[in-house]
Amino acid sequence: MSKSELPVIQADAVCCSPMVREPLDEPAAQDLARMFKALADPVRLRLLSLIASHEGGEACVCDLTGPFDVSQPTISHHLKVLREAGLVGSERRGTWVYYWVLPAALGKLSSLLDIPAQVTA
Amino acid sequence: MSKSELPVIQADAVCCSPMVREPLDEPAAQDLARMFKALADPVRLRLLSLIASHEGGEACVCDLTGPFDVSQPTISHHLKVLREAGLVGSERRGTWVYYWVLPAALGKLSSLLDIPAQVTA
Repeated sequence: MSKSELPVIQADAVCCSPMVREPLDEPAAQDLARMFKALADPVRLRLLSLIASHEGGEACVCDLTGPFDVSQPTISHHLKVLREAGLVGSERRGTWVYYWVLPAALGKLSSLLDIPAQVTA
Repeated sequence: MSKSELPVIQADAVCCSPMVREPLDEPAAQDLARMFKALADPVRLRLLSLIASHEGGEACVCDLTGPFDVSQPTISHHLKVLREAGLVGSERRGTWVYYWVLPAALGKLSSLLDIPAQVTA
């Protein structure tokens, strides 16, 4: 088979985590660590999943306090941390604030951690 | 078309983040938060990416101290945190300890955060 007949695309070259291609530099690591820190709390992870799994992909803050044994101000604090880390968006409509996840930001973290098994073979 | 002729696999049912399918319960959220906490530090993220991107998918601790302005004991502490969170494996061979990433553990976090954009439409 001549070289020109070989398929050009190398799946490995485009599929893999940025972390596998080259070491993270310090500014990138600082940005990413800040986002992971927002996820490093069980209440915030549960809030994020309540929002992501809520019908229509968004949830009113009134939907988010029931399942927890913590106060409304504590829930508001955690939602603020998620929002400031760029993981959720929010908007006030009348009495309530509504939240939705931001898939692009979560996807950035997801692809970073998607390390193929063969890397460690 | 009879029911038996229908394709059985529904892509949406298998593709999506567990977080979208249903809210995380408290024990799962605690486990996951512990792993995210290990990632919530820029030095640890850079160590993880140095290991993942190292030739052969594993790195000697002797490869991991050069790029940092922190002491060897600090690097060792961060490597211990990554190991205890189940994100890297390690083995002593002669003088040095070698580290490699554990793709299954990282993949669990990756798929959790892989939220399709249409969820928020």
